[in-house]
Amino acid sequence: MSSEQLLKQIEFIKEIDKVKYIVRKTKLFNSNRNENDAEHSWHLALMAVVLAEHANAPIDLLKVVKMLLIHDIVEIDAGDTFIYDTQKDHSNTTEERLAAQRIFGILPQQQAEDLVALWEEFEAGETEEAKFARAMDRLEPLLQNASNHGGTWKEYGVDYHKVYEKKKIIQKGSDALWHFAEHLINDSVEKGFLKKN
Amino acid sequence: MSSEQLLKQIEFIKEIDKVKYIVRKTKLFNSNRNENDAEHSWHLALMAVVLAEHANAPIDLLKVVKMLLIHDIVEIDAGDTFIYDTQKDHSNTTEERLAAQRIFGILPQQQAEDLVALWEEFEAGETEEAKFARAMDRLEPLLQNASNHGGTWKEYGVDYHKVYEKKKIIQKGSDALWHFAEHLINDSVEKGFLKKN
Repeated sequence: MSSEQLLKQIEFIKEIDKVKYIVRKTKLFNSNRNENDAEHSWHLALMAVVLAEHANAPIDLLKVVKMLLIHDIVEIDAGDTFIYDTQKDHSNTTEERLAAQRIFGILPQQQAEDLVALWEEFEAGETEEAKFARAMDRLEPLLQNASNHGGTWKEYGVDYHKVYEKKKIIQKGSDALWHFAEHLINDSVEKGFLKKN
Repeated sequence: MSSEQLLKQIEFIKEIDKVKYIVRKTKLFNSNRNENDAEHSWHLALMAVVLAEHANAPIDLLKVVKMLLIHDIVEIDAGDTFIYDTQKDHSNTTEERLAAQRIFGILPQQQAEDLVALWEEFEAGETEEAKFARAMDRLEPLLQNASNHGGTWKEYGVDYHKVYEKKKIIQKGSDALWHFAEHLINDSVEKGFLKKN
């Protein structure tokens, strides 16, 4: 018989399969196909691996990658919230906290506590790891929307100022990536993908 | 202007979006929907995080996670090969090596070399990290097929002996996980999901 510890971990592994069904507003690169949360999380984790050298401060890369792998798991219960939604706050709602308790709570107690704490750390965005992880989360849809001639910006009428305000958080994690992102935002305005006035 | 280094990394990040279109034979848990390589890679990376304590030997978890995040990128060019395919060898074909050179080669040279070496290490399956990573790669579809009342085993007429032979590699990475897997294989035979004779 396998240990109770292992059986709980297997239950968690089955449960998180549901992340693959959570559809984001953003589309894949040069595509009309919406991205799901599992694909998104994979992409961010690998972006962190590739871009780690651009972090403003030394980071524990394993911690960043773990954060990115788990950051959207709460959406199994709470659903995806569009970053430019004006009705609903994007992050760390009561609904998401309950989801974290339930889903990570499937794991053995210590592991559950560790992952809930890691998710809270990501949401708070205060440590160097959380800042860099959040930069990845803002950079990927920017790349996608730019590649899709405006993508969700055009689809939902989001203008330059809103985009700039949401994206400038990238700078907290990486000046170099923010420099790149700012250039891409301005370029998107010039190309008519993003409305400035 | 952003550094040439960063621009190459951004090109790579765009290129690997194609991993999201590579469809595997295996279906999601309790589902008819095929899994894609990005979802699969996300799931394996997080499985490694959750199951690391069961490794037979001390492992560098960041290395394992990196391996799993990149292990199927070569399939952008080489396509997915079904593990029970009798016509085509599963791994490390010339086609896959060329794919690794081209795709990782988009990155700055040192990073490209590092990731090609990491992919080769995964494929060779000899280091403790590669053994544990490969155990994840074998365990996930086993869990999926068992949850799908036989899944691809039934669909492609794969019997117990072939499954057992392919899955026993899990033991190289983790005795505890192999103990669990063996039980699940036997249970699948008892339930009629997997044919023994």
